[in-house]
Parts: sequence; structure tokens; C-alpha cells
Amino acid sequence: MSLIIVGTVAFDAIQTPFGSSGKVVGGAASYIGLSASQFVKEQHIISVIGDDFPQSFVDELESRGIQTDGLERRKDEKSFFWEGKYHQDMNSRDTLTTELNVLADFQPRVPQEAQGASFVMLGNLDPSVQLSVLDQLDQKPKLVVLDTMNFWMDIALEPLKQVIKRVDVLTINDEEARQLSGEHSLVKAANKIQTMGPSTVVIKKGEHGALLFQKDQVFFAPALPLEEVLDPTGAGDTFAGGFIGHLARTGDTSFANMKRAVVLGSAMASFACEKFGTERLMKLTKENIDARIQRFVNLVDFDMTFND
Amino acid sequence: MSLIIVGTVAFDAIQTPFGSSGKVVGGAASYIGLSASQFVKEQHIISVIGDDFPQSFVDELESRGIQTDGLERRKDEKSFFWEGKYHQDMNSRDTLTTELNVLADFQPRVPQEAQGASFVMLGNLDPSVQLSVLDQLDQKPKLVVLDTMNFWMDIALEPLKQVIKRVDVLTINDEEARQLSGEHSLVKAANKIQTMGPSTVVIKKGEHGALLFQKDQVFFAPALPLEEVLDPTGAGDTFAGGFIGHLARTGDTSFANMKRAVVLGSAMASFACEKFGTERLMKLTKENIDARIQRFVNLVDFDMTFND
Repeated sequence: MSLIIVGTVAFDAIQTPFGSSGKVVGGAASYIGLSASQFVKEQHIISVIGDDFPQSFVDELESRGIQTDGLERRKDEKSFFWEGKYHQDMNSRDTLTTELNVLADFQPRVPQEAQGASFVMLGNLDPSVQLSVLDQLDQKPKLVVLDTMNFWMDIALEPLKQVIKRVDVLTINDEEARQLSGEHSLVKAANKIQTMGPSTVVIKKGEHGALLFQKDQVFFAPALPLEEVLDPTGAGDTFAGGFIGHLARTGDTSFANMKRAVVLGSAMASFACEKFGTERLMKLTKENIDARIQRFVNLVDFDMTFND
Repeated sequence: MSLIIVGTVAFDAIQTPFGSSGKVVGGAASYIGLSASQFVKEQHIISVIGDDFPQSFVDELESRGIQTDGLERRKDEKSFFWEGKYHQDMNSRDTLTTELNVLADFQPRVPQEAQGASFVMLGNLDPSVQLSVLDQLDQKPKLVVLDTMNFWMDIALEPLKQVIKRVDVLTINDEEARQLSGEHSLVKAANKIQTMGPSTVVIKKGEHGALLFQKDQVFFAPALPLEEVLDPTGAGDTFAGGFIGHLARTGDTSFANMKRAVVLGSAMASFACEKFGTERLMKLTKENIDARIQRFVNLVDFDMTFND
């Protein structure tokens, strides 16, 4: 089944205690698309770039079945640019530079070829852009997943609540879940968010894994314990891409299949941390992914039966 | 098989954003003993109390098969007292008061009845006390587990390293593992600690679960997502009690059985957080524990097989 993905396609410059990336390709939709392309054959990307953006990356997306009719290219304008610096613990970061450029007045357009998509992934972006995409859809999709962040809660809470009301799954990190719900307990936070619209809530805890909540059901997938985390930028988007990619490939939105989707998303996210930017995601093989999934299975496998 | 437990039996006063405990019974050996008593029939406690300590709690321990010949009672002296205050997030706390009292010059004595124990749990305490207990044992136990904390790394690192060298399993929290090893990555930290003595390392991450490392094997058990955490004091000790209690009951120290022990320890720890002090642990039934274990099984259960 086909998948619409919405989000930034951009440049990042990342500093960590272990090195600097220089200017690399990033953006939520880049990570989501590359990650989902491991699972789903047909995607439509909706985003905007300037004429400074490398055509080679657009070609790479297209070679992976990501159709770019909805990727607006603006002449004489620059792509969105974000620069950030991670703290020593790699769990928090400061934004050094944000240049909106083409994003400043982005009006998304859903191309005709994308209509009828069963799955929609609204990556982190201005909620009014996310809303506009939903408004342009001719048919109600089977599943809409929304990712957002605290930035939009701070400056655009009302439009954000409007989007949240219309989606099936919200993916959000633990601190953002607390901010959005006003509840410290993640169980209570997830319950409260379910009353705001989404029937399913995924709380991403970074190196501490992810929780999947739906009604009274809860599932937990750890993050793989990694020897080295070079750059966590895009890990959450890569998770979301793997999650919706698996659901779109199988067409199955049951809770049991969402659990698989969380494990696959976590496996994909673990790759994203191994190199700066999208580099690691570009070179993944099916064997890499299968081996990583097996590590997840082993990590949590236990058998309580014991004869004594 | 019988189990020796070493640690404090003491008074705590705990303040949290949700209330204050007043003066309650606490101490590492209290939590360990109560938790392990759900699994193992014969324990020997080695600790010290003043004459202000309630005999009813000592009776409670004895009624659970915890022999108290090694529990020294000092006339005209006061029990160890700790007062602490948790921060809003319940993940960190400040110590307000520490009165060593009977602990100041505690010389542990392993009673004759405890000799020959196959399992030894060295709860958090001055490393020289832990060493003294090991020195007094006539026979090498099948398994010695050590729990400690950053306080001893700060003021008694050399004696602590001497104990670490002589134990089979070290249980320690994530920040302490980083401090002890000088490695930020928990994978590298666990590998380094294994070169210091213990063949197995358990890294406790509080609400984020626990990791079990042994050579190239790793296992992760989440903490149960709880609606309310009233008081996390003693959760780590309760974990340790469940962990070694299961190993001592079964006599099986294989990695597969240690994984079960981690799950049981996590289940027991989740109860400890539900009330102030040891209250919740006193009233547990087998049905309570079985139901909680089932919640753990459900929480991480997934099946990657999918026909498409």
C-alpha cells in the first residue's frame, strides 16, 4: 500500500563531543523516507527544497520508490538549515542556528498521484502544514501517524491540537508527552493523549526504548545497547519511518502488528545513530536489518518456565 | 539453598512531592530479606540495630525464615537513620540527614549457623564490612552478589575494588557504572567492570529497567510502567533480593536462569515503589507476584513472524 510522507528535507550541521558533521543532508522526511523504503515500495514525499539542494539525494529517494512530485523546488532560495550541538551525555542538545529559508512560507501540495494513499506519516513540521495536507486528501487514509515536538507545543499549541485530533497514532518523546498532557506518569500521559484524538500513542525514550499504548494494552521495546552513539539526530524520524513502513507494507494495523512495527522502528533507529546524518541509512542491506532484529529478539527473550 | 544477606537494618524518613513517610523501617538488608523471602526458605541476616528498633520487625523477619543470630542488638545505642527528599521527577534525591549511630563502628560477625551458605548477598554498606564477611566464610559460596553505590566510590574506592574483585555479580545503577568504569557507554562500562572481577554485571536504570551483561551476552528487562510511584526508596535492594532469592531457591546460576532472576527482581521492585518503606513488601501474596510477572511477560511479548 502506498504511503505519503510529509516533513523537512534539509541541511543539518551537527556537533557532538566526538566530532562535527559539517553540512549534511537531513530533515525529518529524509530520514522517514529512507527508513520506510526498506519496507514499502511506493511513497510520495511532500516537502520543499531550495536550488542549493543536491539533486543526487533527490535521485537517491526516487531510486527507492519515493515519488517527488510533491517535493517543491524553489529557484534562487535556500533549503532549510539547522545547526545543533549535543551535550556530553548525547541525550540533550542546543540549537545553534535555524534558517527557515524555503520553509518560511511553505504551502504543501498533495499531487494527484499521491491521492488514495492508505498511510500518511506527518513528520515534525509546522502543524498548519500538517493540517493542510490532511485537508487536501480526497479519501480518508487507513492510518495517519503524527510526529511532533515541544517547539510546536510552545508556539502553536492550538493548531497542533487540531492535527492531534485527526490522527490515529501520535509518536512523541517522554518529556513532550509530559508537556502535552500535564501528567508526569507516562501511563497517565498516554491515557490522556488518547482522549485528545489518537487511539494509539508511542512514547519514544531515546536510549531507554519506546512504549506503545493502546487502550489498556501496553508494549515496550528497548533501544539496543550500543557501544558508540555517534549522532542521534534523526533517530526518532528513522523510528517513525520503520514503524509506518512496516504497517504500510503489511496493511495490518492490529496491535500485534504495531508491536512488530515498534521493534522494526527501533532496529532502524539504532542504525541512524551510528553515523552522522543519513549516511548509515543509505547503505543498509536486508542482512544488516535482519541481524539487528535478531539482536532485539535475543535482548528481551526469556522463558519463565522452570521445573523445580 | 541458604542465603546470607548483609546490609543495613535502619530507620528512614522520606519526603517526596506527594507526601512524607515519617520515620519508617528501611535499610538495604530489610528490603533484600523481605524480597528474597518470597523465594528462599532459609536466610541469615548480618547487620546491627540499636535498642530503639522495633522487635516486631525482627519477629517479622524471623517468621519469614530469616535467622537473626547475626543481627547484633546494641544496648543504649540508636539505629542507623537516613532522611532524604526526592526531587519533582522522583529520579533523584538529596540526603537531608545521615546518623550512623550503631553503624559507626560495626564489626560484622558471621554466626556458625550461617556457615556453608551457598549464596551471599552483600547489600550496600561500607566495603570493609562486606570484605570482613567474605573473610569470615569457611567455604567459598556458589555465588556472591554485591550491591554498592557512588558514596563508596567517592570515599572508599580501594576497599571497594577489593570487594568487587571477589564477587561473581555486581549490581549497580547506570551513573555508578559510568563512574566506576570511566566509560559513558553502558556496554563498554559493563565490559570494563567484568575485567575488575565479576563475571556478571547488572546495571539498574530505575524506571528505565535493568540490563544483565555476561561475556558477550546481554539481556534487558524493562521496569513496569506504573501509574503512581509513591516512593522508590529500596527498589534497588528489593530488586537484588528478588534476583538472588530466585537463584538461591533454584540453585541454578546459568545465564538463562539469571534472566528469570532479573525479571523477578524487577517485578518485586515495582511493588516496593507503591508504598512508603517496606509496607507493600510485607503484604504480598503469591497471587500478587504471579500477576505482576504476567504483566512483565505481556509487556515485552512480540512475535516477529508475519506471513505476507
